[in-house]
Amino acid sequence: MEIFIEPIGRLINEFSKLPGVGKKTAQRYAYKIIDMPEAEARAFAEAILGVKRKVKYCKICGNFTEEEECAICRARDKSVICVVKEPKDVAAIEKLHEFKGVYHVLHGVIDPLAGVGPNDIRIRELLARLSSDVKEVIVATNPDVSGDATAMYIAKLIKPFDIPVTRLAHGIPIGSEIEYTDDVTLARAFVERNRL
Amino acid sequence: MEIFIEPIGRLINEFSKLPGVGKKTAQRYAYKIIDMPEAEARAFAEAILGVKRKVKYCKICGNFTEEEECAICRARDKSVICVVKEPKDVAAIEKLHEFKGVYHVLHGVIDPLAGVGPNDIRIRELLARLSSDVKEVIVATNPDVSGDATAMYIAKLIKPFDIPVTRLAHGIPIGSEIEYTDDVTLARAFVERNRL
Repeated sequence: MEIFIEPIGRLINEFSKLPGVGKKTAQRYAYKIIDMPEAEARAFAEAILGVKRKVKYCKICGNFTEEEECAICRARDKSVICVVKEPKDVAAIEKLHEFKGVYHVLHGVIDPLAGVGPNDIRIRELLARLSSDVKEVIVATNPDVSGDATAMYIAKLIKPFDIPVTRLAHGIPIGSEIEYTDDVTLARAFVERNRL
Repeated sequence: MEIFIEPIGRLINEFSKLPGVGKKTAQRYAYKIIDMPEAEARAFAEAILGVKRKVKYCKICGNFTEEEECAICRARDKSVICVVKEPKDVAAIEKLHEFKGVYHVLHGVIDPLAGVGPNDIRIRELLARLSSDVKEVIVATNPDVSGDATAMYIAKLIKPFDIPVTRLAHGIPIGSEIEYTDDVTLARAFVERNRL
């Protein structure tokens, strides 16, 4: 005899597909859905279908949008372009309310081991956006091997355009202690040290 | 400017309703849905609607079922009834593959502070199931104030039927150490000590 009847087992299975969700957590989520009023569960299901139906990629920057062109591309200063790996990086930066320019989402980084080359990500589209109005390109890829490689590659490509390419600073996180900073980060903090 | 476009913000909001899910986790779940193929997201939404449409309560024991009567009530030994608070407790016990009897789900426990009295849970339905075929009632409510009160109340009600009422043992969890067992559990283990 199965422990869960089919519809419950199926929902547990679906929840298990979410990142970091094991069988036990998936069960808790499924019980929560069972306890929800019908209308609330329907709204949940609708929200899932809604993102698949409505969310598209901005044809300029590649960020999520419901229109052809995203709200950031439509409204903001186009002289500074911040290059990121994924749309979720845009959300992380937007939360700061600091950056006032526009974005360019690569939808990946160069990673030869995974078979991802420069033509598999939106680098060509980035070059196409470079005009005399662009005053700076900030590369905000992750500080790892493929993020570094992608940043170097982009910098090299943009060099002929004579537009400054910068990269986010790496170093000791604010609030942490030197003693507990990992070796790689600490070494990097030395290399990127600034004059006071 | 909103950080998330409406459909994504809405899905994050829905995921935040799940137990133990904060904004950050809800975001990760939402991104996962966005990355899913259309068919997979549809299956997810269908599974949510499915439990609401198909899952009913067994008219005998109160457990989840798709039929009038659950598979356990239809197939198993009715001489031993295990009384639990919620359907999820049935699942926890079924996982052991030890208990061969049937269940009775109270859908709550007596909790005067929360305004839940004996008539608000399925105690009447339990008494209605007591016939001469029933050889034992095992009360498996949680070892807390309301679980204890409910167990005592049920035992008192069943006394005139002359059917043995038992309760799950409480004590030191297997694999743990006496040194680290909390005071209440340790005291209870003394009270419920067994002759070797």
